[in-house]
Amino acid sequence: MKILITGGAGFLGQRLARRLLDRGELNGKPISELVLLDVARPADARLLADSRVRAETGDISDRAVLERHVDASTEAIFHLAAIVSGQAEADFDLGMKINLDASRALLEVCRASGHVPRVVFTSSVAVYGGTLPAIVRDDTALNPQSSYGTQKAIAELLLCDYARRGFVDGRVLRLPTISVRPGKPNAAASSFASGIIREPLNGERSICPVDGGTRLWLLSPRSAIEALIAGCELDRAALGDRPVVNLPGLSVSVDEMVAALREVAGDEAVARIDWQRDERIEKIVGSWPGAWDTSRAEALGLSGDGSFVEVVRGYIGERSA
Amino acid sequence: MKILITGGAGFLGQRLARRLLDRGELNGKPISELVLLDVARPADARLLADSRVRAETGDISDRAVLERHVDASTEAIFHLAAIVSGQAEADFDLGMKINLDASRALLEVCRASGHVPRVVFTSSVAVYGGTLPAIVRDDTALNPQSSYGTQKAIAELLLCDYARRGFVDGRVLRLPTISVRPGKPNAAASSFASGIIREPLNGERSICPVDGGTRLWLLSPRSAIEALIAGCELDRAALGDRPVVNLPGLSVSVDEMVAALREVAGDEAVARIDWQRDERIEKIVGSWPGAWDTSRAEALGLSGDGSFVEVVRGYIGERSA
Repeated sequence: MKILITGGAGFLGQRLARRLLDRGELNGKPISELVLLDVARPADARLLADSRVRAETGDISDRAVLERHVDASTEAIFHLAAIVSGQAEADFDLGMKINLDASRALLEVCRASGHVPRVVFTSSVAVYGGTLPAIVRDDTALNPQSSYGTQKAIAELLLCDYARRGFVDGRVLRLPTISVRPGKPNAAASSFASGIIREPLNGERSICPVDGGTRLWLLSPRSAIEALIAGCELDRAALGDRPVVNLPGLSVSVDEMVAALREVAGDEAVARIDWQRDERIEKIVGSWPGAWDTSRAEALGLSGDGSFVEVVRGYIGERSA
Repeated sequence: MKILITGGAGFLGQRLARRLLDRGELNGKPISELVLLDVARPADARLLADSRVRAETGDISDRAVLERHVDASTEAIFHLAAIVSGQAEADFDLGMKINLDASRALLEVCRASGHVPRVVFTSSVAVYGGTLPAIVRDDTALNPQSSYGTQKAIAELLLCDYARRGFVDGRVLRLPTISVRPGKPNAAASSFASGIIREPLNGERSICPVDGGTRLWLLSPRSAIEALIAGCELDRAALGDRPVVNLPGLSVSVDEMVAALREVAGDEAVARIDWQRDERIEKIVGSWPGAWDTSRAEALGLSGDGSFVEVVRGYIGERSA
């Protein structure tokens, strides 16, 4: 089978690609070709050296680009490409183009191909907002308070309708904030959720722009990749009339994250966090819910992390691997 | 002030236009110009004879058409143009073009105009579906089970984000099924909700394609128009973080509608209904909720009808006027 990953040169995209190549199969079929489509080529030389990998660059909002990389043998598509929350708020038109128009173009290309490929969209906690119930469930009303959240909510609705009509075999996985991401800070409003752990562990200072009581909903990179694959392998019928699932994140406060950092790396690491509140980030992150009922995801066999201490230890283990 | 009504030659559009002209003002300002934009000119000669009315034809999914009719003096826009549920299900691309692309183009033209016009979108019960709570509220999760419902839900999300960003002063009014509509049946899945009352009262036979226990959520044309105007005049702040309101419809079963017809027009009228179930219509209408909590609409000062008997009598009164 052939697999396409949009955003395939990104952090999650490359990591998903490595895991798929290691497994060698998806949905019980051997993987013959893995197309990584992105604006740039992946940095990972091991990926590029694999004979199954084809790295392609192009603008995914250009339908012709998508048409070149989706054909009748493309049996699974992971659509990870996105403009992150902070950037979509700063550049409305770019967010609409990539988060909405490109998602729609991808669905249209799948529809035109006629072979009903399996399509996994990733979505986000940012589809929720406003006055929220104490505990958020898969079927809590969407009320995004950012353009990113709006665009993701729209892409979800589109995928559900294309799936209902039989144009694609689609499912949406709502990703918690991924932490701890390796590498550099990015333009996501939630970038600090990795930075306040990663930088102190690397001996660098990091700014925490929100109050310690702010609750986040977190998933480690390793668990995110496992959930993406498990979500793709789910039987369509198991999803019922709502092919949208909140992945089982950890609900933790920033103070609890810092306590985990202290437990693993001591006071010295914690002292590298500078507390400087940023109203713009607080407004976006503060509109996201903090407590979740993820029993549906768990009943579907999707699993998360045991504790944030485990997540921090996992990051350290991978960093030194 | 100048007002634009898209779908201005339609049944609701013409009726709204007449009511606005009779009032002479909106939001406390005299109406100097009322643009009725549609694919055809309105049939109502009285409307066309009014010096304030400008009837325009054009494709509302063509941004250039919208640009011609929205300028800095356009202070209010009622966006009523739509492809109805049955037709959007039968012709996916046409529904996407008018219900989604045209709505987005309208928002973009308003944004480009820079003067933050007041924009009223009408939406629909069809945004709900799937496994529903016993009573549906404004903030019940959207889970449309039709392409029409999907497109309306997306247009709602777009309007909310454009309003949040200050591009428009927007609000969404979710219309119950309008009954009793005068005239002929149309391609809406809910067309029978008028037909089974209107045709028998006119001495004609009418098919009821659903079970008598099916619950509908109904609003008379008169109350719909009053609610559209009241919704446009609502202060933005009163809507809080969710500028979307379910109008206060009557929740009635088809059997209760028939009982109202019997009360007003006798057994003879009721005997003109032919009960012939249509699976396609049952599936669409059956996915809509039947019971509603419309306390928010009422608290905002939006009102509906007293009873369906009143609605039937109102239709007869208007028909003979």
